[in-house]
Order: sequence, then structure tokens, then C-alpha cells
Amino acid sequence: MNLLNGERIDDLQIKGLKIIQNPDYFCFGIDAVLLSSFASANAGDRCIDLGTGNGVIPLLMAAKTRASSFVGLEIQKESFSLANRSVEMNSLGDRITIVEGDIKKASEIFGAASFDIVTTNPPYMSENHGITNPDSVKAIARHEIKCSLDDVISQSAKLLVPQGRFYMVHRPHRLGDIMYLMRKYGIEPKRMRFVHPYVNKDPNMVLIEGLRGGKPNLIVEAPLIVYKEQNIYTEEITNIYANA
Amino acid sequence: MNLLNGERIDDLQIKGLKIIQNPDYFCFGIDAVLLSSFASANAGDRCIDLGTGNGVIPLLMAAKTRASSFVGLEIQKESFSLANRSVEMNSLGDRITIVEGDIKKASEIFGAASFDIVTTNPPYMSENHGITNPDSVKAIARHEIKCSLDDVISQSAKLLVPQGRFYMVHRPHRLGDIMYLMRKYGIEPKRMRFVHPYVNKDPNMVLIEGLRGGKPNLIVEAPLIVYKEQNIYTEEITNIYANA
Repeated sequence: MNLLNGERIDDLQIKGLKIIQNPDYFCFGIDAVLLSSFASANAGDRCIDLGTGNGVIPLLMAAKTRASSFVGLEIQKESFSLANRSVEMNSLGDRITIVEGDIKKASEIFGAASFDIVTTNPPYMSENHGITNPDSVKAIARHEIKCSLDDVISQSAKLLVPQGRFYMVHRPHRLGDIMYLMRKYGIEPKRMRFVHPYVNKDPNMVLIEGLRGGKPNLIVEAPLIVYKEQNIYTEEITNIYANA
Repeated sequence: MNLLNGERIDDLQIKGLKIIQNPDYFCFGIDAVLLSSFASANAGDRCIDLGTGNGVIPLLMAAKTRASSFVGLEIQKESFSLANRSVEMNSLGDRITIVEGDIKKASEIFGAASFDIVTTNPPYMSENHGITNPDSVKAIARHEIKCSLDDVISQSAKLLVPQGRFYMVHRPHRLGDIMYLMRKYGIEPKRMRFVHPYVNKDPNMVLIEGLRGGKPNLIVEAPLIVYKEQNIYTEEITNIYANA
């Protein structure tokens, strides 16, 4: 495997999977690991990851589920290239396809009702919030420059079959928008879990499962606590990483 | 103070306040105590509690805030009577007024934009869910028989001044409806806290603060844990009861 300038290969520590990362562009974080653990897919499911970055979510989900196929959609050519080469390096080209394209056009590209599962770890920050270079790869991964939360949720609703499931990780401060938009576009919030750095701290992430066409009834789960003391993960986080 | 059959006087353990309860009709629970602790009101605020039951929330809020006035609106004559006599017993008639009336008509009764603060501990359960006697006082307090969640939130929006604050305690499984309706009627969710019986259990209550005409930005707080072990409150709950 030829690496480009600045790239490195990291071990995903599951079934021998490896991933190519470039700290200048995109490195996966705990968000992606927790979302992959929170999400599930059944045997035969067709899955798509919107804004896949270096493809970490399809790689982890391919390892832990028996879903038949994964598409990773990514608008940035640098990340698209990383993801594509990671799929190739892991010989997963039969199950994972990385597509260079725009989330806003996802339902045109793939057709309506063409997936059983949507996963997404979208940009968290509103478009104009403290961006120095709006063309940079990192800014596009983190800010709603190329797509808004409305785009992500409305396209997800179109992509999903009836009763298809939607999994997203996001920031709690956006939850008002998230829950309003999910209901608006017909993806009912069914399960939610907040991730707190410590038990006595506000959450800094929220994991959400929605059901296309589902009835209202939300299960909020026990808090997911990351650290029991400084630099020491809780047992649950240690187990999630061990089985990522 | 003359008590009716089945009634008792309980000590609210704050500033010598007492409350009349009737276990056949309505006794306040931890929900009301936590909401009164979660809510705040400034000096001079005009407050209304929608579905006040025996008036526990106005009584607690009158003790802990410098708000100028409290209205407790209650549709059931048995609870209205309990609340009225508790106000009288505590000599709080100058700050608290209990009104017998229908939440659905609250903005007609009191006029639009007539309150700075709305509090509410409404019926939690959807109308048709396991009711044996829909006319009973307890059923009306617990089920959406006389008013729906939509009524509570839409009337709250009408009652509040711009930038007025809305405080509600409810069940987490209704959060999809709650957040959709708040946004729909222009009360933006701004602060939310989940109440978990134990740290590793799903929450069974959610406390929500909304701002009439507010901008989207939600703070989800650290989990509020009730028990550290069986029958033993956490320090935070002990403190809340001590300062209820």
C-alpha cells in the first residue's frame, strides 16, 4: 500500500482491520466508534454512511454485522481517496463501496427507498461559526458548509425504506433542531443515549436512532460515561473499544 | 383548618409550609419537587402553574423565589379545593391564587402574554392507555383526558410574554412529541435534564426549560441520579429536598 505525504496506517483492533488516516484531513474519533457500537444492522441489510470521511464507520460496521452492503458517501476527494484505499487494503471491496458525491443529491444518486440503514456522523457546527478557511478539508468535515442538518435528515428520509433505521451522532446543543427535523421528515426518534465525559458533567455527544415512519415512543437510555477518572476509561468504554 | 374525609396535612419542610393532601385524589410526588427545584423565577415575575393539583408547585415556588404572583389552574374541583385551603392555611393568599378552570381555555381566561413563567407537571399518559375509570380524579390527573400535550404547550405559548420561560416535567418516552410541539408553538427547548433512578438505569423523568421566541441552542445537563443504593438518596436529591 502506497501512502501519500502525511498519511499513516492505524490498526482498528478488530478482525485485523486497518485504516489509512491523515491528521491534516480527517482522523476518526470516539464519535465514530460509539456510533458504530450504538448502531445495528441485520443480515442482508443495505447500509449507507453519509459523509463517511475516511470510511471508519463502514469498516467497523462491516466487521461487526452481517449486513450485505455498505456505501460510504463522501464529497471531499482527499477523504474519498483515504476511504477507498482503506477498503482495498482490507480486501472489503465486495461489501463496501466508497462513492464521491454530495449528500444533498444522495437520493438522486442512489434512488429513493434504496437502503435499510443510514448512519451519519455529520458536521456538527453551524456554517458560520468561527471558520478561518472554509475550503479546508477539516472545515468541511466539521462545519455545515457543504450540507446542513436539514439536508442530512431530509436525504436520509428519502434514502430509507419504510421502517428503515437512521443512526446519527451529534452534539446535544443541536437536539432541538435534530428532533424537530426528524419528526418533520418522518424519521421518528426511537432511542437516544447521551455521552458524558464524566458522570457529573453535561453530555458532549448524543447518539440517536430513528425509525422511518415509526410511531412516537422514545427510549432514552442510561448515560454513557467515558471516564471514571482522568485518562481512565469506564469499563463500558473499554468494552466498546475492545469490540468496536 | 377543617379536613374532609381522607385528607391529611403534610409538612413541606420549607419555611414552615404545610400542604393538604388526599391520597384518594392527588398527592404530590418527587416530580413536583424536582420541577420546583429546576425552575426559577425572578423578583416580580408573574407565574402560572397549569394543572396545579393540590398546589404544591406554587407553594414551593412561592417559598423559594421572589416572584410577585402565582396562579394555580386546576380543572378538578376536589384538587382545586385542596389547593385553595392549603394556600389559606399557609397565609399565602396575597401571592397565590388558585383558579378552577380548563387548561385548554387558559389564554382566554387570563389573556395572551400575561405571564413571565409557566410551570407544568401535566398528565403523562396518552388518553386511551389502560384507563379503568376515566372520570376518576386520579385518572384525570394522570391521563390526557381533559387536555393533551398539544393543549398544554400551545396554551403555554399563548400565556407567555416574549422571552418568557416554560418549565415542564414529563416522561422521556414523550420527548419526540414534546420537542416537536415546543418548536411548533415557538417555545424553544433551552435546557434539559434527565432523572435516572440509578446511574446505570434509563431515565424515568425529564425536566425541560423552554424560552418563548428563543433561538435554538439546547444545554443538556449532567444526569440527575436519585438513588446511590436502594432506599438511599444521592447527596444531590437530599439537598434538593432540604431546600425544596
